[in-house]
Amino acid sequence: MITGRNYIGNQLSSKGNKTYKTFNPELNIENKTVFTEATSEEIDEAVSLASTAFKAFKSVSGKQKSDFLNAIADEIIALDEELINTYCSETGLPEGRAKGERGRTIFQLRSFADLVLEGSWVEASIDTAVPNREPLPKPDLRKMLIPLGPVVVFGASNFPLAYSTVGGDTAAALAAGCPVIVKSHPMHAGTGELVAFAIIKAAEKTNMPNGVFSNLNSSGIEVGEQLVKHSKVKAVGFTGSIKGGRALYDMASQREEPIPVFAEMGSINPVVILPEALKERGETLAKTYAGSITLGTGQFCTNPGLILGIKSEHLEAFIEKLSTEIVEIEPSCMLHPNIHGAYNRNKETAVSQQELQVVADYDNNVRSNYAKQAVVTVKGDNFLSNTKLQQEVFGPFSMVVQCDDKTQLEQIIWQLEGQLTGTLISNDTEISNYPELISALQNRVGRLIFNGVPTGVEVCPSMVHGGPYPSSTDSRFTAVGIHSIKRWVRPFSFQNWPNTLLPDELKNENPSGIIRNINGKLSKETIKDKL
Amino acid sequence: MITGRNYIGNQLSSKGNKTYKTFNPELNIENKTVFTEATSEEIDEAVSLASTAFKAFKSVSGKQKSDFLNAIADEIIALDEELINTYCSETGLPEGRAKGERGRTIFQLRSFADLVLEGSWVEASIDTAVPNREPLPKPDLRKMLIPLGPVVVFGASNFPLAYSTVGGDTAAALAAGCPVIVKSHPMHAGTGELVAFAIIKAAEKTNMPNGVFSNLNSSGIEVGEQLVKHSKVKAVGFTGSIKGGRALYDMASQREEPIPVFAEMGSINPVVILPEALKERGETLAKTYAGSITLGTGQFCTNPGLILGIKSEHLEAFIEKLSTEIVEIEPSCMLHPNIHGAYNRNKETAVSQQELQVVADYDNNVRSNYAKQAVVTVKGDNFLSNTKLQQEVFGPFSMVVQCDDKTQLEQIIWQLEGQLTGTLISNDTEISNYPELISALQNRVGRLIFNGVPTGVEVCPSMVHGGPYPSSTDSRFTAVGIHSIKRWVRPFSFQNWPNTLLPDELKNENPSGIIRNINGKLSKETIKDKL
Repeated sequence: MITGRNYIGNQLSSKGNKTYKTFNPELNIENKTVFTEATSEEIDEAVSLASTAFKAFKSVSGKQKSDFLNAIADEIIALDEELINTYCSETGLPEGRAKGERGRTIFQLRSFADLVLEGSWVEASIDTAVPNREPLPKPDLRKMLIPLGPVVVFGASNFPLAYSTVGGDTAAALAAGCPVIVKSHPMHAGTGELVAFAIIKAAEKTNMPNGVFSNLNSSGIEVGEQLVKHSKVKAVGFTGSIKGGRALYDMASQREEPIPVFAEMGSINPVVILPEALKERGETLAKTYAGSITLGTGQFCTNPGLILGIKSEHLEAFIEKLSTEIVEIEPSCMLHPNIHGAYNRNKETAVSQQELQVVADYDNNVRSNYAKQAVVTVKGDNFLSNTKLQQEVFGPFSMVVQCDDKTQLEQIIWQLEGQLTGTLISNDTEISNYPELISALQNRVGRLIFNGVPTGVEVCPSMVHGGPYPSSTDSRFTAVGIHSIKRWVRPFSFQNWPNTLLPDELKNENPSGIIRNINGKLSKETIKDKL
Repeated sequence: MITGRNYIGNQLSSKGNKTYKTFNPELNIENKTVFTEATSEEIDEAVSLASTAFKAFKSVSGKQKSDFLNAIADEIIALDEELINTYCSETGLPEGRAKGERGRTIFQLRSFADLVLEGSWVEASIDTAVPNREPLPKPDLRKMLIPLGPVVVFGASNFPLAYSTVGGDTAAALAAGCPVIVKSHPMHAGTGELVAFAIIKAAEKTNMPNGVFSNLNSSGIEVGEQLVKHSKVKAVGFTGSIKGGRALYDMASQREEPIPVFAEMGSINPVVILPEALKERGETLAKTYAGSITLGTGQFCTNPGLILGIKSEHLEAFIEKLSTEIVEIEPSCMLHPNIHGAYNRNKETAVSQQELQVVADYDNNVRSNYAKQAVVTVKGDNFLSNTKLQQEVFGPFSMVVQCDDKTQLEQIIWQLEGQLTGTLISNDTEISNYPELISALQNRVGRLIFNGVPTGVEVCPSMVHGGPYPSSTDSRFTAVGIHSIKRWVRPFSFQNWPNTLLPDELKNENPSGIIRNINGKLSKETIKDKL
């Protein structure tokens, strides 16, 4: 069923000459399907279709959008084994992970379907008129969130379903009422095409306008660049490296009309282990962290790449235990030879810095594309003076920083780059001695975790996945959870607008039955007295 | 009481050599006070103080911030005649306007004081743990909005109180918990210093940390540039020209750590008058619009600079009436000789374009710095083909576009640049024939007005002041109303965090008594079962 062609709206198209294949890292061979990269003309066609589709799609009801999103989920389920097999063959990830990620993707789609069906997410706000106010009458003002326009989504290599073709970015944008053009990730182009097929089928079944979704193959940077610079594109979602995200951000902000880029990029996710916790359960923590560092071959954006402690015999013991535990774990396959190659290069660069001491480095032979996990240590002084040590090594790699004292630990935290998460490991009482440290850590991250591991990103309304730069380009939004819809909308206000012509969400009679803020009070009430 | 010095936190300082004076446009003479521009060292000191103050200010309670904001309002009232006289002497605006704007400024401060005292604005969201969920336990996640860090505010020349030193941007940032450094507007530096004095006095009375506010004099671009590029500055607010706002946006987005710039810039605020309305009440509309175009010497950001109609005898009659009415109005003083000079140059450039026909141009002698109002007309074809005609002429100037038909009118609207407002003038029935036109207009603006004038920006929660670029740099936020606080905050999430260490807003017992979203339901309830 995979054709290797692009979806330009609901039409398969392959006008170009540039082709590529995906790769099976477990078998260390290329997969068979030949994918044809989208041409400049096809890109333009997809964006034009999206722009036209927007005129209709922006006013589609919550019920219709909900049907569309649920239909996508149904069609993904219907892809069944073909999807799972393709996923595994393009990523080297095991079947259990593929199925788990599919479940997460479907949950996300249905969460957004529920959100738009219920409808209160538009944050309707109504201030009724006061015609006899002095010195001037107060007008009737009604506000709600409306979609921005066509959105371009760049999926992540490491989550081919939950953060890619119809991952959180796409689901949120469609829920908001924005058509989406996906720049397909070249490492899982087959998985991407199958998902695109599901979306197109769902769009047709639920009568969405043609152009509400397109999927463009791309193996280089040209397709993405043309999309981000296209005047009809109004926002960009991206998950990937700092270098890639920053390049897109720069392109978007240098346009004649700058557009928002929501890029979720690198993070080393600092973990602070306080002294008493280290003393009481350093051994258990070492085991837990050996598991967290190597989970999914270390290819999670919340992988714990940095562990901070104050030097002591207990920290020494923790490091020793972590080192022995981590090499006990069986190495696993990385997503692609390129990612594996980058891991080895980055690890080597890190390790070659003389301030570092390698305390664990898996040294048995492994199969092609399998990653050898490693742990290094560094003294607090050296970490402070060498900012390069903050660079992420994407893979099963972590660095333990041995700080001189509490003051140095706090100093290191204040000067950390922005991160997705920060974790604090503490016993019940000692934490109250570290208010400055918690304040500093909060300043540098988007989510604080107590006595846990950063890997594992719960999909729920209270999740924040995003943080200060460079963990994301705009810390004012989350990339996970239903509130990620806010990235793709803007507030819009109607003044003295006739009731019959208002969107349902703002009509006197509140036909959608949503919660609204009426003259400062939240309610589902109707308004009787509009002139 | 005006010293001409900078406030670096609560200290007056004038280390520099560069000085300037403000100007009284009514009297056409310089005012007496000599202002000393902030030096590079003073700028750095102000930012460092703000950065240190942030560590304390970010955790100050809603009650304390509310006291601070109310104290600022009180201190502004206490400035009494000195403020009003200084305002008038630096702007040429009449006393009534000064008092009205002071009232608006105080209303804004007290609105934010009420907002943070009540506290629900932080959008607290709580998802409680499900320890026995399969395959993995669900953690406890709690989210709320927290401040970004030090904010730099560039005030507007045309609203020396409501959109300047402690205008909407500053009030919103302080309410959010962000220290503010104001780059004082050189045209009303005395007004700015008086207001800064009020803020500093209020900060001291309510025990705010030193550095929570600074006021830096500046007559050129250097002070602003150094502020925007400073690594400890985390966001920027600006009201002014497209050129100025874009320059700041470019600086901010090219930083090593890009920061958000919320710039409210130019807008010509299109007004569409439908045929039946023109026929029924063209004459009244002409009178109303003559008033709106010249209100405040046309120096409002929502001034109606573009009026669109379909050609007919009624449109001709409207143009004729508008032309006769507008020259009946007494010219008034502009804010500054530079603004007056720019008005004359821009008007001349506009008028020199051969497609335009000048139908009204006040031609009696006027006093220095008084603006001669003008109205021009242009055919729809010409407007479409010459994009320069969309450039704002800041002052009492408007352009009427005579469209061939409905199709051309819609086409013109689709290709308009982004605008703050769009106004539709219609009778009760004809509006239903123009769904496409309304859709197009909505796409280009932040606020739609029915049968009114765009001048007049109500301060209320349902207001949107902002719109697609270039009317603002980020259409996802409003610059007016309590929701403008959202520009200066980011969501933050706590995972399994101990209840006693959570901010009050997220504690089980809800000591602030705010509305929270608990497991998807809004309530003020407490949580009993946290482990």
